[in-house]
Amino acid sequence: MRGFFYPESVAVVGVSPAPTNLGRAIAYHLFEFRYTGRVYLVGLKGGSFLGHTIYRSLHEVPGRVELAVVLTPAQTLPDVIRACGELGIRRLVIESAGFRELGEERRSLEEEVTATARRYGIRFIGPNCIGVMNKENGLALPFVPFRDFFHLGQLSIVSQSGGVGVAILNSVATEQLGFSKFASIGNKLDTDENDLLEYLLEDEATGVIFLYLEGVADGRRLMELASRSEKLIIAHKSNTSETSARIARSHTASLSVADDVVSAAFRQCGIHRVTDMRSAMDAIRACSLPPMRGNRLAVVSRSGGHAVVAADAAAKYGFHLQPFPEAFLRMVESRLRAGVIRLGNPMDLGDLFDFELFHQIVSQTLRRDDIDGVLMVHNYNGVFFDGESRGLVQAIRKTCEEIQKPVALCLLTTEEELRINRRTNPGYPLFTEPEEAACTLAISREFASRRVRKGEGPKAAPGDAEKARAILAAASARGSHQLMPDEAFSVLSAYGIPVAPWAATGSAAEAAARAAELGFPVAMKVMAEEIVHKSDVGGVLLNCLSNAEVEAGFDRLSSLAGLSSPASGRQPILVQKMVVEGPEIFVGGRQDPTFGAVVLLGLGGVYVEVLGDVALRVAPITPAEAWEMIDEIRGSGLLRGVRSQGPADRDALVAVVRRISQLLCDLPEIGEIDVNPVKVLSAGRGCVAVDCRIVLTPGVRS
Amino acid sequence: MRGFFYPESVAVVGVSPAPTNLGRAIAYHLFEFRYTGRVYLVGLKGGSFLGHTIYRSLHEVPGRVELAVVLTPAQTLPDVIRACGELGIRRLVIESAGFRELGEERRSLEEEVTATARRYGIRFIGPNCIGVMNKENGLALPFVPFRDFFHLGQLSIVSQSGGVGVAILNSVATEQLGFSKFASIGNKLDTDENDLLEYLLEDEATGVIFLYLEGVADGRRLMELASRSEKLIIAHKSNTSETSARIARSHTASLSVADDVVSAAFRQCGIHRVTDMRSAMDAIRACSLPPMRGNRLAVVSRSGGHAVVAADAAAKYGFHLQPFPEAFLRMVESRLRAGVIRLGNPMDLGDLFDFELFHQIVSQTLRRDDIDGVLMVHNYNGVFFDGESRGLVQAIRKTCEEIQKPVALCLLTTEEELRINRRTNPGYPLFTEPEEAACTLAISREFASRRVRKGEGPKAAPGDAEKARAILAAASARGSHQLMPDEAFSVLSAYGIPVAPWAATGSAAEAAARAAELGFPVAMKVMAEEIVHKSDVGGVLLNCLSNAEVEAGFDRLSSLAGLSSPASGRQPILVQKMVVEGPEIFVGGRQDPTFGAVVLLGLGGVYVEVLGDVALRVAPITPAEAWEMIDEIRGSGLLRGVRSQGPADRDALVAVVRRISQLLCDLPEIGEIDVNPVKVLSAGRGCVAVDCRIVLTPGVRS
Repeated sequence: MRGFFYPESVAVVGVSPAPTNLGRAIAYHLFEFRYTGRVYLVGLKGGSFLGHTIYRSLHEVPGRVELAVVLTPAQTLPDVIRACGELGIRRLVIESAGFRELGEERRSLEEEVTATARRYGIRFIGPNCIGVMNKENGLALPFVPFRDFFHLGQLSIVSQSGGVGVAILNSVATEQLGFSKFASIGNKLDTDENDLLEYLLEDEATGVIFLYLEGVADGRRLMELASRSEKLIIAHKSNTSETSARIARSHTASLSVADDVVSAAFRQCGIHRVTDMRSAMDAIRACSLPPMRGNRLAVVSRSGGHAVVAADAAAKYGFHLQPFPEAFLRMVESRLRAGVIRLGNPMDLGDLFDFELFHQIVSQTLRRDDIDGVLMVHNYNGVFFDGESRGLVQAIRKTCEEIQKPVALCLLTTEEELRINRRTNPGYPLFTEPEEAACTLAISREFASRRVRKGEGPKAAPGDAEKARAILAAASARGSHQLMPDEAFSVLSAYGIPVAPWAATGSAAEAAARAAELGFPVAMKVMAEEIVHKSDVGGVLLNCLSNAEVEAGFDRLSSLAGLSSPASGRQPILVQKMVVEGPEIFVGGRQDPTFGAVVLLGLGGVYVEVLGDVALRVAPITPAEAWEMIDEIRGSGLLRGVRSQGPADRDALVAVVRRISQLLCDLPEIGEIDVNPVKVLSAGRGCVAVDCRIVLTPGVRS
Repeated sequence: MRGFFYPESVAVVGVSPAPTNLGRAIAYHLFEFRYTGRVYLVGLKGGSFLGHTIYRSLHEVPGRVELAVVLTPAQTLPDVIRACGELGIRRLVIESAGFRELGEERRSLEEEVTATARRYGIRFIGPNCIGVMNKENGLALPFVPFRDFFHLGQLSIVSQSGGVGVAILNSVATEQLGFSKFASIGNKLDTDENDLLEYLLEDEATGVIFLYLEGVADGRRLMELASRSEKLIIAHKSNTSETSARIARSHTASLSVADDVVSAAFRQCGIHRVTDMRSAMDAIRACSLPPMRGNRLAVVSRSGGHAVVAADAAAKYGFHLQPFPEAFLRMVESRLRAGVIRLGNPMDLGDLFDFELFHQIVSQTLRRDDIDGVLMVHNYNGVFFDGESRGLVQAIRKTCEEIQKPVALCLLTTEEELRINRRTNPGYPLFTEPEEAACTLAISREFASRRVRKGEGPKAAPGDAEKARAILAAASARGSHQLMPDEAFSVLSAYGIPVAPWAATGSAAEAAARAAELGFPVAMKVMAEEIVHKSDVGGVLLNCLSNAEVEAGFDRLSSLAGLSSPASGRQPILVQKMVVEGPEIFVGGRQDPTFGAVVLLGLGGVYVEVLGDVALRVAPITPAEAWEMIDEIRGSGLLRGVRSQGPADRDALVAVVRRISQLLCDLPEIGEIDVNPVKVLSAGRGCVAVDCRIVLTPGVRS
């Protein structure tokens, strides 16, 4: 990948002297950004641009070309690639559009492009992109025209959309922050986000990576790369709704991915997900400050109202406002003009007009061991004290750099003063309101507490995959898409998941006998292919208390429609011991096409549907992740104990969740599993599955 | 109030020639903003400022003064007010700090100030504020210095904090939007937000009102004023956390109000609540566009990526992306350069470079009857096509004004180009990302659908307040803070709220007899002052199935601690018919110190605690508000019916909620009421209260 960013020479293919020609913009950029390598312009019609010859073909170029950037009509691409191949050019950036995004009929053209490139060992970025940039050497290939008002920084950007990437660059430039590398990947036919991410994780000039994605090429690889990364990764994954999926398909040929799975996957591998430009800039600002290594914040404000607003924001983001030492407060109070302010944290400096003291307060506070960061609000209106104010901002930036703790400085002033202060302090983010500053510090705290995942987490106790597979194969062989309840229970048992004692029975007498063995009360369930939602058709009887009730129940269930022809050799009525105690939890999972097996947890019974409150993780999950899932659902208080009910056995529930996770990873032939409910008994007494539905993955065979 | 904004002459009291004197800034402003009235400067030391005499006392001022603005030490205020009184000055703006915000010991000074002002019929704003402004006549009294780079607009601002008010003004100026009036109210000792709101609702120059509040002076009056308002009101109520309450007390002497009550109250009276500067500016921008009168949106983007992002945002805010007519799409497609884009809504114009056509697309779309607004993304980088781009922005603003539908235009460009375009289009908001634009259109849609409340809503069927009052008085007389269950049930019955049939019993035999009459199964509950959480001490028995069980239950409950001395003459064991059917709902309420009676609704049983998911409204509530509450809780699906369960009787639940609302309004002596659960039977069968707790308001007697 390095060849895409550090070529010694570039050929721009598709330049013409026509004023609407886009290739000219690429050439213009290379000069504007003072690219340090050699530039060759190529275009069918020849001529010249800004005094540079336009060669009529790549073969006419007099020097060696390391990278070709191409903006010719889609149909010409196979020929251009062949020419590159013959000339030994091994890196291409293809900006031309007109491929799969126009519809399936263009897929053969894509295939030809890919095949031709493969034949010559060529790697390319695109098509349908705006190319790459490297601020270090002035490589600037976008056909979208802009000026070089950028600083060099540690942020590198990979964007599936050129427009969105450029908008991020412009925002970064407006705030006088910097960037290192930029790549627009378009249809990612050859090089995808993972290839670039892998490179940028190694690239010494890159410290933070921002991804804009409309689709995810390979979810598992992305997770692996991110998990191992020491660098911070921020991602805006768009294309989250039905309408956006339609336009994304025609824009960069991306299909949408289940959005909750994306969020879970990013969270698990430490990618910070953003949802728009605002949250993207919050995260980019967070990376531009020294890290907030803890939760102890001091708020210092020159406006009393903003002290209140900042305290609201600090509370919103869960910061602890650490008290100031008494001696320090007395010192500051002794310097107040009218003594009309009482000091605390937040500290309202409304009555103080001493710029040197403002700096001292921040600097002394930042040096304290019990403070992790400062949120400062400085307001002035650009009439008096401009010089002092600008000096203060600079002094605070320097203190921040020196002490290596963050000061999120809100500069509430005029547009002009804000601009001047930003220009004097490149690379240092200045905030325009306390909420924004607190949000950024919270992201910084999140980043600072991020752990790189070393290797695999501990495996859940292994299940008897062979046994489970045999059950699945049998169901599949008889043409079923869903297991019978007794089969599902057997699969759970094969993975060590406790099931409420049960028996499959073939006659009323047998049912009564088994019920007596299991102990009353029992539940009875009908088992038939035709009856999927058992309880909706009266296929479930609860709380049967005696032999007589069980026998009558057997007859009633047997007479239900669909049981006239029970599967050969099966015993159609399930008798199961009732479990009354404990909260009901739903544990389940499914296979996601992009990220593979995912595990779900929520309140059980009908609440999982009614509340729509489900924790989700990509499998396999660690014990810590299973605990997080339990804490994440709104109903988790039910498990911690409420009123007279003691705590439930959450350790046992964690084990169940991890075993389900293992089961889904081992057995891709399980498309969907719902264990609903799992009854969680009181602490130390375990939990038991009461009902389970397993749906087979179409087309996957054991 | 008009006298505060349109005085013919102003005296600035507290001016000295010292460079740190803040009174000078006030004088400076009056000149900078070209105040149209006469200005007199007053200061103990005399001298002059900017060529204007500083008179040594108000008595020396040669002309009539209509408004005095005062910035002298707090202790001097009574004298200054007396002087004003003697001279017939009836309006004061007191900017001096040093009152109640410093602690209770300054309250007597406040009282003297208020009393002195009353004696002379003086109305004043402040103290501890930065004064008022009126862009129309150049009245500008803040001691915080700023330049007049403001436009005249229809937005008026009332801010409890000067700093926050100025920050809003600066943001408005940065975006080249305008304002009409500004008032900072500080400690609001005489004039509060309601007084100013009432005036601004009448003021012809004001179209939109923005409030920043740290406390609410009189919640009910605020709600009444807002409910009747044709004008839009936006409010940032801060001071929502424990720490912010501390600093707000020392800043503007504001106590905090329960935040969920504030949100509910604002929503009920049509005030749009914002939580920070970002959301404030979103709302202010929404008021700067023609209203979005419906939900049908067209998205037009020059960047494919932003078309995707905009579609995400449109989905997030619930907009419907209306399809474009086929003929129109064909027309636009015929103008594409390379034909490499497929058009739809969102419309990706990435392949089009015709600024006249961009405008045509927006203008023709906006004129369509089936379109309520347009979100347009225009990106360019200020290298080529600057003139065309700027012309396009102006043309779109004009179209927007002409057709009186909103075009939320995202201008994704460089900082400089954004500034230039804003200056050329004052009063027209330009957005910097699709999310922000969609959010603003959503607020505009909310504003457009806002209804002015005409008079009172229909009353709930009146309850028997006298009967309820007698029960409450009896409990209060015997020193109870909480009603016994039978008393609470009687209060519910007095308000027509159905209660599961019950009887209070004094012996085992009586209990069994009553149980048989009620019908088995029954529940039994102990009633004793000492036992508040009945079920935590085993004071509740459920599902008693026979005479024998009831008799044994009576003995067991009677033997519980605290029953050795039952309240004289009371029958201590309640027997109640069990209601098994239907979802359990919690309905309750309490008296809020600022807003009065509030009503609550959530899932019943332990779920109200576990899920913390409660809908809240200020009473009395309309039927529509009761329906909203039901739809608002996450568990509302349970009432609409789930799986085999049909819909529950939500009409009956609405009646219960409204009766509880009426009961709390009629009986302020009820401090808190929890009806938990209310069992909601299937549609048409009503609902019944099963348990009820009523706590008396301390100090309020029937």
